[in-house]
Amino acid sequence: MKLPTVKVLGICGSLRKTSTNMEALKYMASQAPKLGIKFEIADITDVPLFNADKEDDKNAVTLKMLEQMKEADAFVLASPEYNYSMAPALKNALDWGSRIPGNEGFQGKAASIISAGGGLRGGRSQYHLRQVTVFLDLHVLNKPEVMLSSFDGTFDKETSKLVSEHAQESLVKQLGALQELSLKLNPAAVSTVA
Amino acid sequence: MKLPTVKVLGICGSLRKTSTNMEALKYMASQAPKLGIKFEIADITDVPLFNADKEDDKNAVTLKMLEQMKEADAFVLASPEYNYSMAPALKNALDWGSRIPGNEGFQGKAASIISAGGGLRGGRSQYHLRQVTVFLDLHVLNKPEVMLSSFDGTFDKETSKLVSEHAQESLVKQLGALQELSLKLNPAAVSTVA
Amino acid sequence: MKLPTVKVLGICGSLRKTSTNMEALKYMASQAPKLGIKFEIADITDVPLFNADKEDDKNAVTLKMLEQMKEADAFVLASPEYNYSMAPALKNALDWGSRIPGNEGFQGKAASIISAGGGLRGGRSQYHLRQVTVFLDLHVLNKPEVMLSSFDGTFDKETSKLVSEHAQESLVKQLGALQELSLKLNPAAVSTVA
Amino acid sequence: MKLPTVKVLGICGSLRKTSTNMEALKYMASQAPKLGIKFEIADITDVPLFNADKEDDKNAVTLKMLEQMKEADAFVLASPEYNYSMAPALKNALDWGSRIPGNEGFQGKAASIISAGGGLRGGRSQYHLRQVTVFLDLHVLNKPEVMLSSFDGTFDKETSKLVSEHAQESLVKQLGALQELSLKLNPAAVSTVA
Repeated sequence: MKLPTVKVLGICGSLRKTSTNMEALKYMASQAPKLGIKFEIADITDVPLFNADKEDDKNAVTLKMLEQMKEADAFVLASPEYNYSMAPALKNALDWGSRIPGNEGFQGKAASIISAGGGLRGGRSQYHLRQVTVFLDLHVLNKPEVMLSSFDGTFDKETSKLVSEHAQESLVKQLGALQELSLKLNPAAVSTVA
Repeated sequence: MKLPTVKVLGICGSLRKTSTNMEALKYMASQAPKLGIKFEIADITDVPLFNADKEDDKNAVTLKMLEQMKEADAFVLASPEYNYSMAPALKNALDWGSRIPGNEGFQGKAASIISAGGGLRGGRSQYHLRQVTVFLDLHVLNKPEVMLSSFDGTFDKETSKLVSEHAQESLVKQLGALQELSLKLNPAAVSTVA
Repeated sequence: MKLPTVKVLGICGSLRKTSTNMEALKYMASQAPKLGIKFEIADITDVPLFNADKEDDKNAVTLKMLEQMKEADAFVLASPEYNYSMAPALKNALDWGSRIPGNEGFQGKAASIISAGGGLRGGRSQYHLRQVTVFLDLHVLNKPEVMLSSFDGTFDKETSKLVSEHAQESLVKQLGALQELSLKLNPAAVSTVA
Repeated sequence: MKLPTVKVLGICGSLRKTSTNMEALKYMASQAPKLGIKFEIADITDVPLFNADKEDDKNAVTLKMLEQMKEADAFVLASPEYNYSMAPALKNALDWGSRIPGNEGFQGKAASIISAGGGLRGGRSQYHLRQVTVFLDLHVLNKPEVMLSSFDGTFDKETSKLVSEHAQESLVKQLGALQELSLKLNPAAVSTVA
């Protein structure tokens, strides 16, 4: 049986060119077609800090990101930990998305979270992000949680590419679980996409 | 007895011109001289989202903010709640500050938090912010907590000015408690300032 | 069309006889039959603090509660706020439940949270509880959130009964949303119950 | 120069006989005399779950714990992580302590947190506990944070004794920092003890 196509949008909170969080997200995207998933990664580098006074004056990348959010069935949020919480760039992208009329960007959709880092491997940022998703009305996958170490060989030291097979498997497993949750939550919406 | 002068830096997470959080912060600043406190408010409107790749290329407002952080003895953080957590602009300012060598911006200094909002009056953002201060090594005042309603007449509807006497008193009380905590934590550092 | 019967277990963190949290939960239970929901409230008054050394020696009320957890399709957690977090009695009941082999008590089931209190109306406890549900693998409803004031006439001052119609409606609305989420997450499991 | 004697009360959230959290706390206590610190560990095994209806009927161990809290200048909280949050026994002990009139148990005192565990090494429980301390008005040390692995040889596998020298050093370092913070916050109160 062929599953309906789930459209996933990935958003990464790090703006660096060689970010372990972005590399983990890219690996996930590369494996999506095997699961029949359409996976895009949003470019948020030039999305400005939200300022309600200038909300009507959106630049092109912001407009594109908002369109992608509306079209997505599900989200993967790559959440680096900065000072024990979320990266502002990720939170800011979600704040922009929360202003889409009718909450069409997020309402009732599925999401999963991944992080890479030192110490608690980004864990502290993940639980803050989960609180944000309550208001956004995103349903975040409980398991498997993916928290990767940026410093133990999981990523190649020079290129930041994800090289650990164990980590690769956990990402694919999470993506499959996200697909399943998305289809449970919104079977009709998704089937019209296929 | 004259107390040594405590230098407080206020930072507000909202970039709007008429922000209730900024108005509460401005009221606090206006009362500081009566307590012998020197109170500045940082201008973070044009501080860009942190990107490690571009860290060496700071603009003038960022450089000024970082200088103010180094010179401050204590901080008041005005923390609007966006989607159940912190405003990215506030978190981003703190992230920039955390990169000052030797953590000279924050280490061991006192801080207090205020918020204004609907629902839980910014409360959810305050506890996330407290987690951030653990890594920054800021000592945040426990009491009095200040969470103001943006919608019940605490602020003037047209100008957003803080008009509630009760709220004004709670802000002054918090500022006095911040002064006391700052002097306990860093008596020597502060006395050299006077 | 008749929906399959969802079996809901309510657990309240307050052990007081006249608890506003328990009264809110009881009101919800009283309305469940209208929605075709079977609603029980666990008696956790004599469930002892978990001690791994004494885990094999469970008393009768603990054994009954664990059976109820296994049989439940969904949960309503009434979460009073003690000192800015959860009531130990509620957390303790969940900790006991988490020890059921194969996580048969909670895995993949739906849950909702209600609270009554002063200040932030129990809100701080709700977000801590949500973090607990991640490990338990409970899917907590995002909306509507229910946070009731214990002091503004929502509850009768003498009997603690829930008297506010607005609050009553929000509880019924949440219960309906819980039913819907439960049926989405576990359609097969539930239909065998009916 | 001889420092005034700081009286520290340790409280451990695990009730097991061979608990890594308790062993870490015991190690800290064993090193306290070298720093001129008086260190007691509360026995909370038979402190019952708080029930406001039975508050006036305290057993002997509860009464003793409450006396110890009043006499303490500072606290070390050993916080195992159960299901991504605090152990109910620890939270319950603090809830009892919060009922001491005038908040004489905690108000304005210093505290530090340690944890041992798998995964994030108890980290998730530590940040929830910090939120609790805001209401208790305890000033929790920011650094050094101590999160120990229960599974990598830090503790002896058979006896659970703390054997890692690195971990031992971090505990002594935290205890010294706690002493310093306590003396800053309450110099007068402490000096009357000596």
